[in-house]
Amino acid sequence: MTTPTYKYMHPLSHLPHLSHLTIFDTRPNLSQYVQENLPKFFTHQTSSISIADIRFAATIENAVEGVHIIQESGPENLSFKQTLWTKVEQHAPVDALLWSSTSGIPASQQAAGMQDKTRLLVVHPYNPPHIMPLLELVPSRDTSDEVIKRTQAFWTARGRVPIHIKQETTGFVANRLAFALLREAIHLVKEGVVSVSELDEIHAGGGPAGLEGFFKNIGGTVQDCWNDAGRVNVGDEWEEGVFQQAKQAYGVVDIEERDRITRRLLEVLAEEKSKTSS
Amino acid sequence: MTTPTYKYMHPLSHLPHLSHLTIFDTRPNLSQYVQENLPKFFTHQTSSISIADIRFAATIENAVEGVHIIQESGPENLSFKQTLWTKVEQHAPVDALLWSSTSGIPASQQAAGMQDKTRLLVVHPYNPPHIMPLLELVPSRDTSDEVIKRTQAFWTARGRVPIHIKQETTGFVANRLAFALLREAIHLVKEGVVSVSELDEIHAGGGPAGLEGFFKNIGGTVQDCWNDAGRVNVGDEWEEGVFQQAKQAYGVVDIEERDRITRRLLEVLAEEKSKTSS
Repeated sequence: MTTPTYKYMHPLSHLPHLSHLTIFDTRPNLSQYVQENLPKFFTHQTSSISIADIRFAATIENAVEGVHIIQESGPENLSFKQTLWTKVEQHAPVDALLWSSTSGIPASQQAAGMQDKTRLLVVHPYNPPHIMPLLELVPSRDTSDEVIKRTQAFWTARGRVPIHIKQETTGFVANRLAFALLREAIHLVKEGVVSVSELDEIHAGGGPAGLEGFFKNIGGTVQDCWNDAGRVNVGDEWEEGVFQQAKQAYGVVDIEERDRITRRLLEVLAEEKSKTSS
Repeated sequence: MTTPTYKYMHPLSHLPHLSHLTIFDTRPNLSQYVQENLPKFFTHQTSSISIADIRFAATIENAVEGVHIIQESGPENLSFKQTLWTKVEQHAPVDALLWSSTSGIPASQQAAGMQDKTRLLVVHPYNPPHIMPLLELVPSRDTSDEVIKRTQAFWTARGRVPIHIKQETTGFVANRLAFALLREAIHLVKEGVVSVSELDEIHAGGGPAGLEGFFKNIGGTVQDCWNDAGRVNVGDEWEEGVFQQAKQAYGVVDIEERDRITRRLLEVLAEEKSKTSS
């Protein structure tokens, strides 16, 4: 649980004292872990964050006292989160924003035991979270408009792209898209149409440009594909073979390479898009 | 119908005289059309192709005489293609490669009227085809291994990425992936979860890195999403609203911008990947 008040970013006017980060985490040797690992995730541009200024709290009560934002990134376990928020609510300031980075447990379920359900929403980052601008903001029906707006403003001011998801749909949006793609990819591998490493050469295009014309031209083929869609389920017999192929194709993921390439691509995309709009 | 023998690329040793391009096309003022439009699709690096050297054939018989490769890019109509290949077979050299760029009609169906079905396969480019390295090679069961190998060698030597698709699956591979993604995207828009323009901000990640660990961690959520998958069909009532939103979000697609950005991203990706492997 953290208050993400990165010093290298401009403080917001309505959160004037936002300049501290407190971490509560039950892992042993937390301070050492953070000192060893956190610097890896920042580029030169953002390295003015001072790890020495991070405060480590011994209890949840201690961690949430006097803070402006509480970011929960605990285990994906409903009763854990329900218990946590009930406790947080008792000790945090009444106007603190309450954010969960869950990828699957809706705010409405997490808030079940809370007195005031208007302050909690899901703020779900996309992998790798220190690079990808996307954040899915998924409020419950009880989350107040003001809380959504303050959350959007916080992240927009920091150059991120917060998307307000209008319903607590299973898996939110980005993962649903990725999983639809993944299911079809697995089906094709399972049927022997292509191998895992061949699939990786195919960078499927996104972006429905000229959508109406697209469907006029090849809507028939699209429907044919959909009618013929693969049926794959987690835990079925495809797993062993596909996991094996994936291991052979990739080995251990090189995180540094992934980060470097993702950064470069995003930089170039921003640079090129600014040329068009100027 | 063309013999794609681009002068700016290295001729292959087994095709030593590959230095001419002949186009057969029924559109009026073909020569003028090509002179006006073809240069747009080449960068400085590839501009040594001489449009003056392109030959325009008046008949199919004339077009295919003495050529090494025949690339068919005609209408997506089975009987048209069947008639065409029957005629081509009678007039082309016996060792010429026969390629169709269809996005949906399998080589096995196109070859139905041919005497020798071993020479024909689908060579399906991805949009925009003058930039995207991907080519799906989709042979029928009758296509010979030698024809597949010659086709792979031709494109590999030109820096393209030809993927051998092992079965004539509906829609091949890249489009099946894109359409699975598209179906889910349409479902989410139709249900009011996000708007078309918000969806465009979400660049869903691909690449199943660490697949086994991924499923161990959040396989439950993946299965939940799949169980809850959207059901959308071409021609249903979603079309009008979604097409309208797409028009408002994008207007007319800026092809120059699309090409410039796609080129830059591919350049940067290649540059960064070469750093890792070196």
